[in-house]
Amino acid sequence: VADLVPPRTLSGFRDYPPDRMIPRERVLETARRVYRSYGFAPIDTPACEALDVLLGKGGGENDRLVYRVKSAKSEVEEMGLRFDLTVPFARFSAQHVNQLGTPFKRYAMGPVWRGERPGHGRFREFWQCDFDTIGTTSNAADIETALVICDLFDGLGFGGKFEVRINNRLVLNGLLDSLGLADKSVPLLRSLDKLPKIGREKVIEEMGREAGVSAPQAEKVLALAGTTGSNTVVLDQVERVYGSNATSADGVAKLRELIAACAAAGIPDGRIKIDLSICRGLDYYTGTIYETFLTEKEDIGSVCSGGRYDNLASVYTKQVLPGVGASLGVDRLLAAMEELQHPWLNGATTPARVIVLNFDAKFVGQYQKAARELRAAGVGVEVYPDAKKLGPQFQYAEKRGIRLALIAGEDELNRGVWKVKDLVRREEIEVPVSTLVGSVKALLPE
Amino acid sequence: VADLVPPRTLSGFRDYPPDRMIPRERVLETARRVYRSYGFAPIDTPACEALDVLLGKGGGENDRLVYRVKSAKSEVEEMGLRFDLTVPFARFSAQHVNQLGTPFKRYAMGPVWRGERPGHGRFREFWQCDFDTIGTTSNAADIETALVICDLFDGLGFGGKFEVRINNRLVLNGLLDSLGLADKSVPLLRSLDKLPKIGREKVIEEMGREAGVSAPQAEKVLALAGTTGSNTVVLDQVERVYGSNATSADGVAKLRELIAACAAAGIPDGRIKIDLSICRGLDYYTGTIYETFLTEKEDIGSVCSGGRYDNLASVYTKQVLPGVGASLGVDRLLAAMEELQHPWLNGATTPARVIVLNFDAKFVGQYQKAARELRAAGVGVEVYPDAKKLGPQFQYAEKRGIRLALIAGEDELNRGVWKVKDLVRREEIEVPVSTLVGSVKALLPE
Repeated sequence: VADLVPPRTLSGFRDYPPDRMIPRERVLETARRVYRSYGFAPIDTPACEALDVLLGKGGGENDRLVYRVKSAKSEVEEMGLRFDLTVPFARFSAQHVNQLGTPFKRYAMGPVWRGERPGHGRFREFWQCDFDTIGTTSNAADIETALVICDLFDGLGFGGKFEVRINNRLVLNGLLDSLGLADKSVPLLRSLDKLPKIGREKVIEEMGREAGVSAPQAEKVLALAGTTGSNTVVLDQVERVYGSNATSADGVAKLRELIAACAAAGIPDGRIKIDLSICRGLDYYTGTIYETFLTEKEDIGSVCSGGRYDNLASVYTKQVLPGVGASLGVDRLLAAMEELQHPWLNGATTPARVIVLNFDAKFVGQYQKAARELRAAGVGVEVYPDAKKLGPQFQYAEKRGIRLALIAGEDELNRGVWKVKDLVRREEIEVPVSTLVGSVKALLPE
Repeated sequence: VADLVPPRTLSGFRDYPPDRMIPRERVLETARRVYRSYGFAPIDTPACEALDVLLGKGGGENDRLVYRVKSAKSEVEEMGLRFDLTVPFARFSAQHVNQLGTPFKRYAMGPVWRGERPGHGRFREFWQCDFDTIGTTSNAADIETALVICDLFDGLGFGGKFEVRINNRLVLNGLLDSLGLADKSVPLLRSLDKLPKIGREKVIEEMGREAGVSAPQAEKVLALAGTTGSNTVVLDQVERVYGSNATSADGVAKLRELIAACAAAGIPDGRIKIDLSICRGLDYYTGTIYETFLTEKEDIGSVCSGGRYDNLASVYTKQVLPGVGASLGVDRLLAAMEELQHPWLNGATTPARVIVLNFDAKFVGQYQKAARELRAAGVGVEVYPDAKKLGPQFQYAEKRGIRLALIAGEDELNRGVWKVKDLVRREEIEVPVSTLVGSVKALLPE
C-alpha cells in the first residue's frame, strides 16, 4: 500500500462523474444547437498561448491569475493556460480575420484556468461557452444577441422563468456627460455594478471615495439606474430627463429598436427587460449590455452576460474589430439548475434507458441484435456483460436510473418473444420480436 | 505597430477555424451518439493532475512528455497537463469506483498535451475520444467493443469501407509459451508490432537482438502472425498448430465467440477480420486487441485502437479493475477524411444553410421572425446584420457555402411573400409567408 499513489484531484479542480456530466453535456448540446441555428460557427483555439498573447503589454491583474506552462526540459515558462475565451478569440481574429471575412460569427466552448484561491463555487478550471458577432456595428447584431439568449434559455427548459436585462452604455455615458462626469465613467460604473451586492448607501460612499463625486451627483446616477416600470415607461423617462444629450438619445433609440424588433420576432412580453442599473464592470463594453437572470434563482446572479464592444483585438492588430456577444456561465447555470431541481439533473448515471439482461452468455449475439435495432431507432440500450443472477442485474439497472429491462432465455428466443419489464411501474409484458422497437418506444415516457 | 503583440499560435499548437471545426464537431457528435447508444456514460476529468498521479512511481518515458504547470506565485511545478485520457481514467476509477459500482462504462473526449517535437501530423495538443467498460472479465464486453467500433465507422460514413482487425494476446502468449519464449513476450511483441513499418527481415533481426531469439523461432512467430485467409481458416490453423496449449486455445475460443456474436448481432461479413499480426506495442494489453483501418487509406494506420487489460489502476488502488476499451484517433481520422475528400469536409464555414438578406434595417424584426420559424424547424438561418447592397451580401453567403437566400423588402412584406434564391442553381422563386418553412425545407438538398 505504501507504494500506491493516492488518487485525488488537485484543490480547485473537479471530476465530472456521469450524474453531473450528463446534464453538462445536455446544456452544451443545447447551446451548440441554438448558436448553430443562428449561423454562429464553431472555432477552437489551443489551451496554451504565448504569455505575451495572454497578458498583452501590461500584464496587470491577469498576470497573477495565469498558470504558467513549460515542457520538462525547458528552463523558462514561455506559455500560459488561457484564463478566458475572449483573449484567445481576439488573438484568433487578429490572425485570421482577413481570410475569414466579416461579419464573422463564432461560438467557442471549453475549459479555462485561473490560479485563484478556490472557494464557494469558485474553481481553478471551469467552462465557458461564448458567442460573438464581430466586424459590424449594426444594431441588428445586438438585437440578434438578445434573441439568441432568449432561444437558449427556452431550449434549456426555462421558458417563462428567465429575464434578459438590457441596458446601453450610451445611456449611462450620456447621463454622466450631462452631469459633467464623463471622465469618471470607469470608477462610477464599477461602483454602480456593485449595487445589488453592497446596496445604495455604500455605492454613494464609494462613488465619492473612488471618483470624487458629490452625494447629490451620485444620487442622480442612482436615480436614473433605479428607474422602474415597463420598458416604454423607463425609456420615456430617460428621454424626458436626458434626451437632449445626443449620446443618451442614441442609446435610447437603439434600445427602443431592440425591444421592438424582439417583439416583432416573436419574443413574448416580459422576457426582455430594460434595466438601467445593469452596466457590467468592464471598461471593455461600449454599447448594449446583457445580463440574464433565472426568476426563481435571482440571487445566483447573471447566468449569461455580455455586451457590445468597439474594438476586440487592439492588442494584436490595428484593424478595428467592433462586435457584440455574450457568454453562458455553464458552471453557475448547472449549480442553479441543481438547486431548482431542474428535471435534467435527475441523478441518472447512464444515457441508456433500456437494459438487456444477460440470462445466458451464449445468447449475447442475439441480445446485441435486439439492442442494435433499438439503438438504430434512437433508444440507448445496454447489454449486461455478465451472465450472473438476475437480482444483481436488476439492482445495477435501478441504481443507474434505467427504465426498462428486456429479458429472454432459450424459451423466449425460441418462441420469438421478449419480456419487457418496467422498472418503475414494476409491470412486465411479453411482446413479439417483430414489434419490440415499437413496444419499447411506447413504454418509455416522453 | 511596435506596440502590438504579434498574434500567433505556439509551435505544435493549432487553431481550428470553422471549416475544420465543423467536421471535428460532427465526428465528436457521432462518437458521442454511438457511445451513448450503448449506455457508455460521459465523464470529464481536469486537464491538470498532480505530477505523481501522471507519472506514477517511476516517471520513465512519460516524464519527458509531461508539461509542467504552476501558478504565477508558486516556486515549484506541482501539476502537469494530462498526456492521455487513460491515466486520468485510472485515477478517476480508483477514486470513485466504489460509489459508481461495476460494471462501469464510460466515454471521455478532450484534448491531451505532449511536449514532443512537433512534426508531420504530430502536435503538442490533440484530441482523444475513448470508451471503456471496466469491472468485468466477460467476453461480452469485448464483443460489444467491436460492435461499437463498427457502428461508429458506419455513423462516420465509412459503411463498407473500414475493417476492424482483431487479435487476442492469449493466442500470441500461447504460441510463445509453446516455443519456450513466454518470458520474452514484451520485446517480441514490441518487435512484431513494427512489422508493417520495418518489414519481415528487420523484425527477425530485432527479435534476435532485443530478445535473444533464434531466427527459426522468430520465423515461427512470424508464420503464425502472417496466417491469412477467412476468419475461420485462420482460427482453424492456429488451433491445429497451437491448440494443445491451453492459453492459445482460450484465445481462439474467445475470438470464435466474438466473430459469431458479431455476425448474430447483424454486422456484415468483412467488417471484422482476425489478424494475428495485430498486437499493439503496450504490455498493458492482455486479451482482445483492436485496430481499425480505412480500406481506402490504410497507410495512415489504425484510426481506432484498443484492447482488453487485466488491471487498469494498479498505480492508485489495490482493487483489481479489468476492462476493455478503445480510442478514436480524432486528428488522424480527420486527416484521412480530408485526403479522402469525405463529404463532411466540404469547406463550409457556417452551420447556416439559409441567409435572410438585409434589404432594409427597419425590417430586422420581421427578418428574425421568419428566421426563427425556420430555426424552430431545424434549419440554420443567418440574418445579415448590415443593410448594405445585396451584391456583397450574396458574396458573403456564397463564400460561406450557404445554399438559400431569402429576400423581402417593403413590397414583398406587404404582399406576404418571400423571394427564395438558390445560390447554387441560381434560380429564384416567390413563396407565400404561410408556406415558407415547407418550401425552404423542400429546396435544401438531403
